[in-house]
Amino acid sequence: MVRMLTREFGDMIASASQRPISDAALDYARRDLIDTIAVMLAGRNDDTVVRLVQTQRLLADGTPPDILALALQAGTAAHILDYDNVALGGHPGATLIPALLALAKRFPLSGRALLMAWATGYEIWGELRRRHPVLAHAAGWHPSGLIGPVAAAAACASALALNTDQARHALAIAASQSAGLMANFGTPVKALHLGFAAKAGVFSALLARQGITGNDAILEQDNGWLNTWSPHHPADRTTALALGQQDWLLARQPTAIKYYPLCYAAHRIVDAACQLHPLVASRTADIVRIRLTTSQRHSDILRFREPQDRTQSGFSLEFAAASALVDGEITLYSLQQERRARAQVKLLMACCERIASAKADPEREGFALHDQIEIVFRQGDTLCSPPIRYATGDPRVPLTAQQRRKKFDDCLRWGGISENITGLWHTLQNIEQVPCIGEMAIYHLLECDQ
Amino acid sequence: MVRMLTREFGDMIASASQRPISDAALDYARRDLIDTIAVMLAGRNDDTVVRLVQTQRLLADGTPPDILALALQAGTAAHILDYDNVALGGHPGATLIPALLALAKRFPLSGRALLMAWATGYEIWGELRRRHPVLAHAAGWHPSGLIGPVAAAAACASALALNTDQARHALAIAASQSAGLMANFGTPVKALHLGFAAKAGVFSALLARQGITGNDAILEQDNGWLNTWSPHHPADRTTALALGQQDWLLARQPTAIKYYPLCYAAHRIVDAACQLHPLVASRTADIVRIRLTTSQRHSDILRFREPQDRTQSGFSLEFAAASALVDGEITLYSLQQERRARAQVKLLMACCERIASAKADPEREGFALHDQIEIVFRQGDTLCSPPIRYATGDPRVPLTAQQRRKKFDDCLRWGGISENITGLWHTLQNIEQVPCIGEMAIYHLLECDQ
Repeated sequence: MVRMLTREFGDMIASASQRPISDAALDYARRDLIDTIAVMLAGRNDDTVVRLVQTQRLLADGTPPDILALALQAGTAAHILDYDNVALGGHPGATLIPALLALAKRFPLSGRALLMAWATGYEIWGELRRRHPVLAHAAGWHPSGLIGPVAAAAACASALALNTDQARHALAIAASQSAGLMANFGTPVKALHLGFAAKAGVFSALLARQGITGNDAILEQDNGWLNTWSPHHPADRTTALALGQQDWLLARQPTAIKYYPLCYAAHRIVDAACQLHPLVASRTADIVRIRLTTSQRHSDILRFREPQDRTQSGFSLEFAAASALVDGEITLYSLQQERRARAQVKLLMACCERIASAKADPEREGFALHDQIEIVFRQGDTLCSPPIRYATGDPRVPLTAQQRRKKFDDCLRWGGISENITGLWHTLQNIEQVPCIGEMAIYHLLECDQ
Repeated sequence: MVRMLTREFGDMIASASQRPISDAALDYARRDLIDTIAVMLAGRNDDTVVRLVQTQRLLADGTPPDILALALQAGTAAHILDYDNVALGGHPGATLIPALLALAKRFPLSGRALLMAWATGYEIWGELRRRHPVLAHAAGWHPSGLIGPVAAAAACASALALNTDQARHALAIAASQSAGLMANFGTPVKALHLGFAAKAGVFSALLARQGITGNDAILEQDNGWLNTWSPHHPADRTTALALGQQDWLLARQPTAIKYYPLCYAAHRIVDAACQLHPLVASRTADIVRIRLTTSQRHSDILRFREPQDRTQSGFSLEFAAASALVDGEITLYSLQQERRARAQVKLLMACCERIASAKADPEREGFALHDQIEIVFRQGDTLCSPPIRYATGDPRVPLTAQQRRKKFDDCLRWGGISENITGLWHTLQNIEQVPCIGEMAIYHLLECDQ
């Protein structure tokens, strides 16, 4: 029987701040917050973000951006390098955390309340995600664009302490803003999807708080959100919310913290290439073929075989493999034009061949069971990487504390921030002690230099 | 063969202002502008618009709304009473004209250029609409929410005189903002769909002007906009743009100007009821059954059999029929609470029975060939309305000049505007003489009274 899900979601959101949360969940929440702030600051001077900010400034006539403009800017900056964390079929961190940071600029929110609101939004994202049997990618939509607005509205509703009715109307208003085409992957618009979703989440929660109402059965109705975005497959409108679980979803299914600044679909191939690097670095001129085995879905997503710019290179399986084989790593610098243009990288890219894996990962839709690289040398010998199931940074192969700190430092430096990086790191490590997020220096840092 | 449609659309938009336009097309354009301004002013003090404006004011801290906020407000106000014009499967007028009026507040735009940009957006709307074999309604989406952002971006790109490349990137940015669930019909969120679309159109054109790029084959790519929004049926990606036609689409397929302030799906039943009114007004107490024949689609859209508020009443076939039978008309006043609550109307609503028509209109998807009312009296006799194919205001049964003027006056008075209505009417009749739309008094009138 179809449940009154929108009502149940509303109840869950309104009561979330009273629900006990474990230290483990809070640890993950803090880790996600710090990683998201890092990639957001790394992206703040990116060309697309600068153009976005210029457009918003033009419209604002010199007044500071309002929090909707800030949510759009922060969400776009957090995703523009495709270096933000990944979970539940999308990018919850770079969607929800920018929304909450924007909200906190205007409405009082403590560090702990922000972490709780992020955990709440993540819980809602997971509930929405698992009710769709097939990921939206397959139908042409960007999952973060579809789930993002609704989950961000939930996170903001929790942060604003909306009541049950207001919370469910926030979901209904946000549900009509689900959007985002896969066909804009590999273009700057992909990052805007997250910015738009963050902004929609903030705005929906504020409109509901002001008394605007939508369909209060928006999720479960026959032509409601769940079914409409799952036209070919029955959405799950019958099972209960997973609230009886011993801990929050964030602790049970933590995010993957990305180790490489490019589309997540390429990460396992990058891991494989990094492992092969010491064995092939001196012999790249002898390579005649590089066989890249991955899922058809990931191959489709990484659609640029001859990428023309930074954004396209982040969506190129060939570039990912070649660059990692040559350097043994992929960093923010790997995607700079002069490094992308190297003849050695171009030659290796030309040797690449894609092989669609025959085995699907039963746990993760769209993933092959393993990704792998096989290299054929002119001399006839071959070299094969280990099969890679979990990319570095996956919760099963988590980044070390040192790797996370290095990523933080790299990101801030990439974003042009050189002073007091360690100070900010320590403040963020103790974010739960911050009484009012809106007074933190992060907002000042977020402003781009242009 | 799949055409390079996005490029062709970009060319068309960039060259639109040079394309000859007939007086007939300009007449229709002016008529639509005036009608849209009228319904926008009628809706300016509606509860939802007031709450929206309050939210935007709260965020803006006393600064005047920027043109994105204005586009959202104007688009929502134009549709909140569901009294705006109808064409091409949706509401082009209340989506595109508010976007253009908002743009004109900031960027110089003459009256003639505004009419041309509206005609251009309408042309693009029609091109997009006809390439989808099945209207989005059937899949759960609001057509104006889907086509609206893209067509509004086209209209704004034309108004801003963007070049071909910028115009097609404006389309790509807007394409990722197509949104809007049918399940929010009958709630205030339905009107927000148009506001969001208007805002997305303005913003997409400005972002493209600032150099942000998306997929430049966004419309026609296999997983592009056309196919993604038409998953069950092949979208038309092969036929040429209808540019060789002797006149603009606006002259060949003009809008229907609504005569009744409720969902268009109910208009033919209202016409039927108005015709029966003189025959049944004195005998309503004797009515035992009212058979309402309409299409299944329209019956589904008009989903409230016992509407609880003004918005739901606008989506109730029973209310539409009963109210028109009692009064012989439906006006803005018919939807006021005290008139909705009349016992006579309630009794007639209880006698209503819906009959799904077996005959579809071959010209208009979702329409029955005719709508009709049959009334059964206690005494056993019956009365049948004529079959209604075209509602009053349809281009084939256009409103008279007098009816249009009356609607204008009614709308402004409903919106609380009493001074110089005739002056505004005459200014708008000569809109082509206005050198700078942004200096007109309309913007002052648009501000709500709260």
